[in-house]
Amino acid sequence: MSDAEGGSEGRKSRRGGGGRAGRQAARAAGGAVRIPYIKRGIPTFDPFSDDQLTIVEDNADAILAEIGLDFRGDPETLDIWRKAGASVDGERVRFEKGMLREIIQKSAPAEFTQYARNREKSVQIGGKNTVLVPAYGPPFVRSLEGGRRYATIEDFRNFAKLAYSIDGIHHAGGTLCEPVDLPVNKRHLDMVLTHMTYSDKPFMGSVTAPERAEDTVEMCKILFGEDFVDQNCVVINLINANSPMVWDDTMLGALKVYARNNQATVISPFILAGAMSPVTVAGTLSQILAEAMSGIALTQLVRPGAPVVFGTFASSISMQSGAPTFGTPEPTLVLYGAAQLARRLGVPFRSGGGLCGSKISDAQAAYESANTLQNAALAGVNFMLHSAGWLEGGLVMGYEKFVMDADQCAMIQRLLVGPDMSENGQGLSAIREVGPGSHYLGCAHTQANFETAFYRSPLADNNSFEQWESEGSMDMTQRAAMRVDRLLKNYEKPDMDAGTAEALKDFVKQRKEAFPDSNI
Amino acid sequence: MSDAEGGSEGRKSRRGGGGRAGRQAARAAGGAVRIPYIKRGIPTFDPFSDDQLTIVEDNADAILAEIGLDFRGDPETLDIWRKAGASVDGERVRFEKGMLREIIQKSAPAEFTQYARNREKSVQIGGKNTVLVPAYGPPFVRSLEGGRRYATIEDFRNFAKLAYSIDGIHHAGGTLCEPVDLPVNKRHLDMVLTHMTYSDKPFMGSVTAPERAEDTVEMCKILFGEDFVDQNCVVINLINANSPMVWDDTMLGALKVYARNNQATVISPFILAGAMSPVTVAGTLSQILAEAMSGIALTQLVRPGAPVVFGTFASSISMQSGAPTFGTPEPTLVLYGAAQLARRLGVPFRSGGGLCGSKISDAQAAYESANTLQNAALAGVNFMLHSAGWLEGGLVMGYEKFVMDADQCAMIQRLLVGPDMSENGQGLSAIREVGPGSHYLGCAHTQANFETAFYRSPLADNNSFEQWESEGSMDMTQRAAMRVDRLLKNYEKPDMDAGTAEALKDFVKQRKEAFPDSNI
Repeated sequence: MSDAEGGSEGRKSRRGGGGRAGRQAARAAGGAVRIPYIKRGIPTFDPFSDDQLTIVEDNADAILAEIGLDFRGDPETLDIWRKAGASVDGERVRFEKGMLREIIQKSAPAEFTQYARNREKSVQIGGKNTVLVPAYGPPFVRSLEGGRRYATIEDFRNFAKLAYSIDGIHHAGGTLCEPVDLPVNKRHLDMVLTHMTYSDKPFMGSVTAPERAEDTVEMCKILFGEDFVDQNCVVINLINANSPMVWDDTMLGALKVYARNNQATVISPFILAGAMSPVTVAGTLSQILAEAMSGIALTQLVRPGAPVVFGTFASSISMQSGAPTFGTPEPTLVLYGAAQLARRLGVPFRSGGGLCGSKISDAQAAYESANTLQNAALAGVNFMLHSAGWLEGGLVMGYEKFVMDADQCAMIQRLLVGPDMSENGQGLSAIREVGPGSHYLGCAHTQANFETAFYRSPLADNNSFEQWESEGSMDMTQRAAMRVDRLLKNYEKPDMDAGTAEALKDFVKQRKEAFPDSNI
Repeated sequence: MSDAEGGSEGRKSRRGGGGRAGRQAARAAGGAVRIPYIKRGIPTFDPFSDDQLTIVEDNADAILAEIGLDFRGDPETLDIWRKAGASVDGERVRFEKGMLREIIQKSAPAEFTQYARNREKSVQIGGKNTVLVPAYGPPFVRSLEGGRRYATIEDFRNFAKLAYSIDGIHHAGGTLCEPVDLPVNKRHLDMVLTHMTYSDKPFMGSVTAPERAEDTVEMCKILFGEDFVDQNCVVINLINANSPMVWDDTMLGALKVYARNNQATVISPFILAGAMSPVTVAGTLSQILAEAMSGIALTQLVRPGAPVVFGTFASSISMQSGAPTFGTPEPTLVLYGAAQLARRLGVPFRSGGGLCGSKISDAQAAYESANTLQNAALAGVNFMLHSAGWLEGGLVMGYEKFVMDADQCAMIQRLLVGPDMSENGQGLSAIREVGPGSHYLGCAHTQANFETAFYRSPLADNNSFEQWESEGSMDMTQRAAMRVDRLLKNYEKPDMDAGTAEALKDFVKQRKEAFPDSNI
C-alpha cells in the first residue's frame, strides 16, 4: 500500500469500506491514485509571440557564434566538439548558427519514460505531462519543533518517506537534503540506496563527481538489470551550467556518464538574473537558450537519443542587497519564455517549483511559492524540481513546508486536468431539478458527484472562526506539523526482493570500503 | 502627493533627489506611478476551447428558455421584460434563445472609463485593462495588535487611506468594511463621503436600497457636476444575483437607479458551487452565464449604452462541512471559463481578487490568495474586486493582509505588462561585455537598468538567515503591521475645493436629518 495518507482522519474512516469507496475517498482527498503523474487536459499558456521568440533565438545564435562558451578542464569534451565541427579555441567553443539546434533535433527525444521499480509509478517526461518532484540540495532542515539545523541522513530518510507517502508528489527526487553527517565522497551511496529502498517511485542520481555518477548507474543495474538500464531511462540527473556560459569538468563528467548509459540529464542554466545574466527578461532568455542548447547537444553527441531535458532555474536578485528573490514577476516571464523555447526546440522542459526566499513557512513563503508553482504549471513545465519543501532560497528543506507544498501540488493536478465537459460535467439535470431560489446540496447530481467534485485540502482550515478558535487558533504550519507526524508514523517501507536488497547493500558496503572518507 | 509610501526607508532616502530619480525609485519599488491601472502587454490565458464554450452557451440558452429566472418583488422590471418580448409567468421570466445576447450586443459598451475626481487616476474598464480594487463588504476587521473585532467608520477611513496611499491599488473600492457603529440606513452616506474626501481615486456606490443608490448619485452630481454625471461613468456598483436564478427587488432597484443615471453596474452571480450551482465547473458556468446575461440585458433595456460589467464570484464549498473554500482548482477553472464567455459576449469582466478562507494572514491565506490573484490576472479580469485585505471568506478585512495583497498587486502589474523586447531589453550588449565566467553586477547595462529592472517588494525579507534573525525573526505579517503604521502615519488628505467639500457635507447632514436612524 503506497498511499500512507490513511493517518488523516477523513481518509482513515472511509478506508474501512475499502474497494471503490476507498478509492473514491482517496480521489476526493486530492490524490489521483491511479495516475502517477499529471497528463494535462488544458493547453499551455504561451505569452510570448512567435516574433518575440525568434528574436531570442537569433540572439542565442549570436551568443553561440560570436562569444561562445567555456568547457573547462575537460579535453575529451573539447575533442567531441572539434569532431562535431565547432570552433575550439583553447577552452572556448563557438558554434555556427543553427548547428546545435540541428544536432538536438536530429536525435533528442521529445518525450521519454523514466521507469520506477514499481512500474505503476513510472513517469512520462515531456509532451503534455507534468511530473512534480521534491526540492533538491538544501544543507539545512527546518521544523516547527526543532527549528533550523544542519541536515542528516535521518532527515533525508524522513523526506524520502514523505515523498513516498504523498500521491501529489510523483517522484522521489534527488538530494532531498544534504546529509552533512556523512562524508562528502560517500554520502551519495546512502542517498541513492535510500531512494531505492525507502521508496518505489522514480528518483535522481548523483552528479557531484563522475565516479559518483558511475556508482549510481551501477546501483541502477543491480535494481533494474543491466540490459534494461542500457535501453531504458531509470534515473534522471541534474546538470547545472556555471552561468554565464561556463561548463566545468565535474558537471561535464557526470553528464557524459549518464548520457553514455542512456540515462536522463536535466541541462540547467542556474541563473540569478542581474548577477549571472543580464538584468532583463529577454537578455536572460537568450543566454539560457544558448547555455541549454550547448549542454543538450553534447548529450546527443555522446549518445544520440539519450533522454535529456531543457532545464531552467531563473531567479532575480535584489539589486540593493544582492540576495536572490523568488515569486516575483520577472522570473515568471523568464519561465514562460523558456518553456516556449523548449517546445520550439522539441525537448522536455524543467523549471518552477515552490520557490521562496522566506526563512519560515509564513505568508511570504506561501505567496512566493504559489506564484512560482501556478505559473510553472500553466507554462507547461514537464519536470518540476523543487515542488515541495523549499525554504530560504533553497538553503533549507522544511518539514511543514513539504506537506504544505504537496497540498498545492495536488491542486495543480486538478487544475491541469481541466474541466469535465461530459453530460454529467455539464450538470444541466441538476439545474433543471433545482430551479430558481432553491439549493443544490441534496439534489441527485450533487449526491452522485460530491465525493470527487472539489479538491479537499488536508491542511486548509475552512471552519467557522468560532470552531477554529476553539480548536486552538492554529495556523497552517501548526496543522502541517501534525500531518508530518502522522505521515511519518504511518509510513511502511515498500517490499523489495531480498536478493536485490542484499546486492545493493553489498555494493554500498564494498564501495565505502574501497577508499577513505573525505569531505571533498 | 498621492504616493504616501515614502515612509518606507528605501524610497524616502531616494526621494530626497526628487524629479527623475524619485520617479525611478518609485518605479523600482513596484509602483508604476504614471499608470493608474494595468494595460496588459501579454495575451490572456484561454484554457477553454471554442467548442467547450459553445456547449456552455447553449446550455445557458436552454436554462434561460426552459427554466427561466425569478425577478422578485419588482413589477416594473417584469413590465420591462414583457415589453422586450420575454415570456413572463408570475415572477418567472423566460427568454428565447439568443434574445439576451442580442440586447446586450446591441448597446453594451465593450470598454468604458470610470472617471476619478483626480482625472489622472481615472481607470479604463474592459479590453486589455485590469483595475485592482480592495475587498468589499467585511463586517469585521483584524489587525496583528487588535485581533478580530467588528468594524467601525474609523476602520473604514483607515482602509480608505491605505487604498489611497498604495499605487498598486487602482481604486478606492466600496464597502471596505461595514461601519457597524453607524445606523444601517445612513452609513452609506459616511462611506461615500469618505471615498470622495479621503481619496481621489475612483470608487463604488451604495446598493443596499434604491434610495441609497439615489443618494450616491446625488453626491456624485455635487462632486462631478450634473451634466458630467449624466454623460460619464463616475461610480461603479456591485449588483449580486441571488443564485440560483433569482433577482430580488433591492438589487433590481439599485441596478435601475444606476443604469438610468448612466452609471456602471457589475452584474455578479454570487456562487458557492455545490450549494448555489451544480458541483461541476461546466454546470456552474452555464448558470453564471444565464444569470449574468439576464442582469446585463436589463441594464441595457433601462438605458441602452449604460456601462456594465459581467461579474462572477465563484467559490466551491467543502462538501463535508458546507464551508466555502478558496484558491482551489475548480473555482479557478470557472474563473477562466467565465472570462472567456465575457469576452465572447463583448463586455468587461469582473472576478478574482485575493480570496482565502484563512482566519489569519498565514500561509493558508497567502497560498489561496496568490492562487486566486495569479489566475485571475492571467484570465484577463478587467475589474478585480477583493484584490486586497480579504480574510476568512470575506467576513474580515485584514490590516496586514491589505498591504500584503497590495504587494502582490504591484507584482501582477509587472507580470501583465510583459517583457521588454527593445534592444535594451534584449541586453546583448551586456552579454558581449561580460562573457563566460564573469558576472553582470557592474556592467554598463546593469548600471543603466538596475533601479527599475526587478520588482522590489516592501515586505518580503530576502536577507540572510543571520540578518533576519538578528532583526527579530519577524514573519511577513509582523513586517506588514509596521508598514500599515507607516502608511497611516504618512497619509495626507488630497486637496478638495472648499465649496464642493461644504456642499457634500451639507447634503449628508440634510439626508441624515430627513429620517430617523434604523438598523434595517
